Amino acid sequence: MQFLDIREEGFQAKFDAIVERGEESGREVEGVVLDIISAVRSRGDEALLEYTRRFDRLECAAAGLEVTQADFDRAFAQVEPQDLAALKLAVERVARFHEKQKQQSWISTEEPDIMVGQKVTPLSKVGIYVPGGKASYPSSVIMNAVPAKVAGVGEIVMVAPTPGGEANPHVLVAAKLAGVDRVFRIGGAQAVAALAYGTATVPRVDKITGPGNIYVATAKKLVFGQVGIDMIAGPSEILVINDGSGNAAHIAADLLSQAEHDELASSVLITTSRTFAEAVAEEVERQLKILPREGIARKSWESFGVIIVAGNLAEAISFSNRIAPEHLELAVENPFEILPLITNAGAIFMGHYTPEASGDYLAGPNHTLPTGGTARFFSPLSVDDFVKKSSIIHFTQGGLQRVGNEIVRIAGLEGLDAHARSVSLRLK
Amino acid sequence: MQFLDIREEGFQAKFDAIVERGEESGREVEGVVLDIISAVRSRGDEALLEYTRRFDRLECAAAGLEVTQADFDRAFAQVEPQDLAALKLAVERVARFHEKQKQQSWISTEEPDIMVGQKVTPLSKVGIYVPGGKASYPSSVIMNAVPAKVAGVGEIVMVAPTPGGEANPHVLVAAKLAGVDRVFRIGGAQAVAALAYGTATVPRVDKITGPGNIYVATAKKLVFGQVGIDMIAGPSEILVINDGSGNAAHIAADLLSQAEHDELASSVLITTSRTFAEAVAEEVERQLKILPREGIARKSWESFGVIIVAGNLAEAISFSNRIAPEHLELAVENPFEILPLITNAGAIFMGHYTPEASGDYLAGPNHTLPTGGTARFFSPLSVDDFVKKSSIIHFTQGGLQRVGNEIVRIAGLEGLDAHARSVSLRLK
Repeated sequence: MQFLDIREEGFQAKFDAIVERGEESGREVEGVVLDIISAVRSRGDEALLEYTRRFDRLECAAAGLEVTQADFDRAFAQVEPQDLAALKLAVERVARFHEKQKQQSWISTEEPDIMVGQKVTPLSKVGIYVPGGKASYPSSVIMNAVPAKVAGVGEIVMVAPTPGGEANPHVLVAAKLAGVDRVFRIGGAQAVAALAYGTATVPRVDKITGPGNIYVATAKKLVFGQVGIDMIAGPSEILVINDGSGNAAHIAADLLSQAEHDELASSVLITTSRTFAEAVAEEVERQLKILPREGIARKSWESFGVIIVAGNLAEAISFSNRIAPEHLELAVENPFEILPLITNAGAIFMGHYTPEASGDYLAGPNHTLPTGGTARFFSPLSVDDFVKKSSIIHFTQGGLQRVGNEIVRIAGLEGLDAHARSVSLRLK
Repeated sequence: MQFLDIREEGFQAKFDAIVERGEESGREVEGVVLDIISAVRSRGDEALLEYTRRFDRLECAAAGLEVTQADFDRAFAQVEPQDLAALKLAVERVARFHEKQKQQSWISTEEPDIMVGQKVTPLSKVGIYVPGGKASYPSSVIMNAVPAKVAGVGEIVMVAPTPGGEANPHVLVAAKLAGVDRVFRIGGAQAVAALAYGTATVPRVDKITGPGNIYVATAKKLVFGQVGIDMIAGPSEILVINDGSGNAAHIAADLLSQAEHDELASSVLITTSRTFAEAVAEEVERQLKILPREGIARKSWESFGVIIVAGNLAEAISFSNRIAPEHLELAVENPFEILPLITNAGAIFMGHYTPEASGDYLAGPNHTLPTGGTARFFSPLSVDDFVKKSSIIHFTQGGLQRVGNEIVRIAGLEGLDAHARSVSLRLK
């Protein structure tokens, strides 16, 4: 962990090393991934089965790739009632939030001779990638599938590698609760390729979302354009802004909840109180020792943990806006007063009783958030990601008459006579 | 031009060749573009000036790259009053449409102990790329800058190469009318790199939009993630659905307005009337001869023009949805009746008096549209492209108490104890 003063010399340079920890290393795997994509594209199921056998040690016929109703029934039987209730609450709350994001189609009628509008249409089919193994999180399923369902997507197809064949029961239960239509036991670049181009068994989708390792991320980048994708996620981060109020143990726990994710995660506290800063530093050390994932959390905290003392809250906010953190906690007395000043952040956790973990699971907003400073221009995953818009334009002959000369003039400026003719032919 | 019957054998295979005409060829230029980006990133203005000298034959100091007020004044003096009026009308109408796309920040208050919401914030700075030479269109400037302005972007920076040094006056005038703040005489991959990373002269932006050649498109793809980008545009297309009503000469003119854009453009008519189909084919031949851009239009029409006879309107619509055209004309008696059936299209031009050219310039909706079937998942450029959203989450202690156990349970399922602890510490 680094303990920095925002006004010390070289502060920015020291911090930049943290920001750039995620600089992409995808180019070396690009060749491998390209081969996998072109094999699945040209040989379909045959290639998909080969890779699944090789990478996931799963030997089966194409039909065996799909999770069956019996698999789902078994999964439901394995899940504790209280866990089921918790997952149901999460689905319900996340759905309620995302319902508010739905946009309506509209058409303007203020100029009856020239009506314009926008049609909002759900995507027909989407694919959701869920990682296998340790990072197989039911909350990821919920956060990807629920917005798609709320958007009205026709078919939601989930893929999840099942090394050795057994799927995570909580993931299957979450999929069913969230409205996923079909689940396939495939993963890696081959799963992304199958969703992008379709095989005899796996349907071609219009968009692929969800987290994954470097092979999955590279495959998503390479099929982008053939299908839509969500943002490419980098390592995760939290920034806590504090004004000296609150409880150091709480803030330490929040910093560690980020650090336990992976060794590249970054946890940053910026506070106006040196006393508070020191108390948090001590608390982190104390709490680290009792964490089951101490190894990961300690590595992350040592490499990319930072505590910064700022001169005042305005300085802290301006620093945060420069960083554009994925998760931003406003652990201050009056968080609503400073909310309007926050220009760049994925999700903003307000006040002393809103730990980041609340938003990870069931507050309602999506936990798929822009990382690595991309909150400057990316937004959280939302219902908008699962619809597309079409413009609507309707001219009557009178409407075209009214503005036709101007259209013809601009077409003329651009040297596009056929454009001009398509209008002038309809005038007079 | 191919004349096809939708029910003939091999129809789909014949059509697929058209659809795949735009398959990307960007990989070979990737090496060149990577070099340019890394030179500009590491050497800034010095590299930018070198490339500008080499590619645009423009020799100047860094400060000379920026268009001055005197340049703008000269441009305004060169533009005909009627052209100025037409451009002003376009800006005004496009702004009025995009105003309707603006979304508000919101916060829910139905659960006072757990408030959630969404903050909408304009991007701070955006870069707009405008091609030089023949394809230097004032309408592109308007269609990119106006939504950014309406969104409330802090600074709009435009780049446009000026081979030999002279900027297109209509482009400069459009920039001023549309609210562009600064214009630089740079282009190509070097301009994209300068906008993405910033140099001493050119500010770093948060997002880059606008059309460009293969070097520009490749550069945009490569800096994606460092900055946001709009979609990568492929060759343009129009699909006209017709029910036998209307005027064959009008439809022929519309098909040619697409064909004159470039040799890779594709113009497709699908009609339920063989008589109408034949009349349009004849009209296209007749009109081609009188077009100034006959060469380009004829090449496009011969290679990628198609007239299809469909059995009925439902067949035509289902075909169109499969193609997901950039521009879709519903040249039918009752276009509003079939609008709900259209699931994939960039812009929908309704009825017999709405030629595509109307939407290109001043109907109001954006002319930057998803090409090559990507209307399955992409939307027209909009105000949404120039804002980003942040989730807002606020728990009171009572709110956290109410759902805390469920958060702890899900964290437990995922093996993330520090997540659970950050909540349980705050309970009771």
